[in-house]
Amino acid sequence: MRQDPNRLIFEIEARDGDARRGILQTPHGPVETPAFIPLATKGSVRGMSSREIEGMGYEMVLGNTYHLLVAPGPERIAEAGGLHGFMAWDKAIITDSGGFQVFSLAHGGVAEEIKGSNRNMHGQGKTLGIEEEGVRFRSYKDGSELMLSPEESMQVQALLGSDIALVFDECTPFHADRDYTARSTERTHRWLQRCLDWHGEHGPDKQAVFGIIQGGTHADLRKESCEAVSAAGVDGISIGGTLGRDKEEMAEVLGFTVPNLPVGAAKHLLGIGEVDDLMRGIALGLDVFDCAVPTRLARHGMALAPRPDKRFRIDIRKPREVGNREPLVPGCPCSACADYDRDYLNYISKSEELTAVRLMVDHNLTYMERLMRGAREAISAGEFTEYSDRILAGAPPWDAR
Amino acid sequence: MRQDPNRLIFEIEARDGDARRGILQTPHGPVETPAFIPLATKGSVRGMSSREIEGMGYEMVLGNTYHLLVAPGPERIAEAGGLHGFMAWDKAIITDSGGFQVFSLAHGGVAEEIKGSNRNMHGQGKTLGIEEEGVRFRSYKDGSELMLSPEESMQVQALLGSDIALVFDECTPFHADRDYTARSTERTHRWLQRCLDWHGEHGPDKQAVFGIIQGGTHADLRKESCEAVSAAGVDGISIGGTLGRDKEEMAEVLGFTVPNLPVGAAKHLLGIGEVDDLMRGIALGLDVFDCAVPTRLARHGMALAPRPDKRFRIDIRKPREVGNREPLVPGCPCSACADYDRDYLNYISKSEELTAVRLMVDHNLTYMERLMRGAREAISAGEFTEYSDRILAGAPPWDAR
Repeated sequence: MRQDPNRLIFEIEARDGDARRGILQTPHGPVETPAFIPLATKGSVRGMSSREIEGMGYEMVLGNTYHLLVAPGPERIAEAGGLHGFMAWDKAIITDSGGFQVFSLAHGGVAEEIKGSNRNMHGQGKTLGIEEEGVRFRSYKDGSELMLSPEESMQVQALLGSDIALVFDECTPFHADRDYTARSTERTHRWLQRCLDWHGEHGPDKQAVFGIIQGGTHADLRKESCEAVSAAGVDGISIGGTLGRDKEEMAEVLGFTVPNLPVGAAKHLLGIGEVDDLMRGIALGLDVFDCAVPTRLARHGMALAPRPDKRFRIDIRKPREVGNREPLVPGCPCSACADYDRDYLNYISKSEELTAVRLMVDHNLTYMERLMRGAREAISAGEFTEYSDRILAGAPPWDAR
Repeated sequence: MRQDPNRLIFEIEARDGDARRGILQTPHGPVETPAFIPLATKGSVRGMSSREIEGMGYEMVLGNTYHLLVAPGPERIAEAGGLHGFMAWDKAIITDSGGFQVFSLAHGGVAEEIKGSNRNMHGQGKTLGIEEEGVRFRSYKDGSELMLSPEESMQVQALLGSDIALVFDECTPFHADRDYTARSTERTHRWLQRCLDWHGEHGPDKQAVFGIIQGGTHADLRKESCEAVSAAGVDGISIGGTLGRDKEEMAEVLGFTVPNLPVGAAKHLLGIGEVDDLMRGIALGLDVFDCAVPTRLARHGMALAPRPDKRFRIDIRKPREVGNREPLVPGCPCSACADYDRDYLNYISKSEELTAVRLMVDHNLTYMERLMRGAREAISAGEFTEYSDRILAGAPPWDAR
């Protein structure tokens, strides 16, 4: 694993079992881990200004190569000083490679599995062909033919100027058979090398590159992928691909994957971010998580809450919330909980007023930030197991320590 | 004109020609005039929390009887402590009577005239009958039959607990002939009396009632209406109905209407709020303005700006804004202007990201608040004409004094 102070250094500050607290030192400042990374898929976090996201305590957001390639295009972002300048965000940025999106278009199916639905794939494009060279697809914006390949993805990410670029991979779906998954994983490893070759020659000096582990739900393929990626000379590691049908399979897949990775490597779990998943991922030694859940749930009137029996959610649109004078989650410092009761949130969410989505995004991202902050503090105190147990038993993050 | 310190007092603090600076003392605090009133039609200002609207400097918002009657219903709002408690807004509230909306459904046409398009009439209902008793209409929400009459409107507004209720009137459209307008205006006056009778017996002691001037574009009918409403014992006066086909006719109608009203009365111009209209209305001695323009424009990528030749607007979605590194309006203290350039705003507005609407609402309401603040200060300094001239010549509010 590379450790280049011009690019990225991952320092582990405290350990508690396999869980660890650390800092990713990026050219745009530190990111305290374990960290949840809000999605700024198209260059904005749903309904929020960059300043507001920073005010919540977040130190990194995730932008997406696929969406930003389609619109507004990487050259325009580069002219704005990269994605940092474009979206007025001075802290760290990680960019997804676009692999997940173009393969979701091709394979379908990923959406229904453990990853949750496809990440903001409104107005879907169409995949025209998967080849060794890369993937051709049609723009959802204007129907033009676009290409993503290892080199193209890295070039786009170089223009975006993210602090961490992800390599271009094939995200194999759950329904792919072992043979397909094995061949796909091998191609992902060849693409990894092409990404690193391109980046070594043309990439920005300050941009780190994370490799992506594939291999589906197969222990041997995951192990091979861990070995291939760990040996390739990346700056950190993301775990991608299908993690199975349900949370038990996810635990199993992560259980036979993570131990095959270098302990000291920064580890990112792609697209996972439910409350219980985060607690289990942190316990396994994972450091960074991104997920559409907090922002996507908000659009549908779902609030994160200390309710382990209800997937840690409140559906604020349910009739039982009419007349409820309680806040969404007592003690939560977000603007929705500080100022409004559930009765009002039920009404504006059902009315689909813009203010509703915003208040719910504010709540969900505030809740998530507190959850991760609590985890970091618990690890430093050697009390992560207790913290996690309390969270999983229904304590809110601010009362779980 | 009533002046009841338990309910509402209007104090004129400074005069400059016919323009005046004043304070509406309401049970929920003072409202400095001339004032622009943001719309919280359905109990929220588009994309904004109540705390944010207060933070911008606004002291009153407008809620709508028609929309709040349909959903969530006035009883539910009353149980929340009235509209103030329901939407967590501790400052003043004025409520529209619903007359404009039910007659827009019946007459159509109002939308295309000087009033601008119908105020947030998404998912229109249907008018079933206009009678002396009132107006029956079908709910846009569930198709149930609802009634608005003078008594019903006042009862709903009593339950909403607004600081200022408007009487239930018929808003006659521009295309109505003189005879219809004359008969309609007479009915509006009968309804005014029924509103005051109901309110005197059942209304909240602390709620003020504003009468509404009708009479279309006919000088004699407007004069009669001014006399009838001024003599009726209201707490203030709103000017409603069609003001003609264009800004010249609006100036003409206001010119033969306003002088027929008591100088000391608080005067509210319904549904008007373009920058030049505000300057001309203030010069005539009008005190309060409400309008959907700042929030509605935001949804379509239109920003208020010191551009007299372009209706004081920038269409941020135009191709010429691509690559433009300037803020929307230099010197504007809003979050959109402080943090982002036009290139980015062009992109997110065209992408219809939620953040775009919010940033544009923030800009437009900030701009409007500064415009009115500047007008108040100019009146105090005896320089309103100069201020208005500079605004109409293209100065931003913060440079026009």
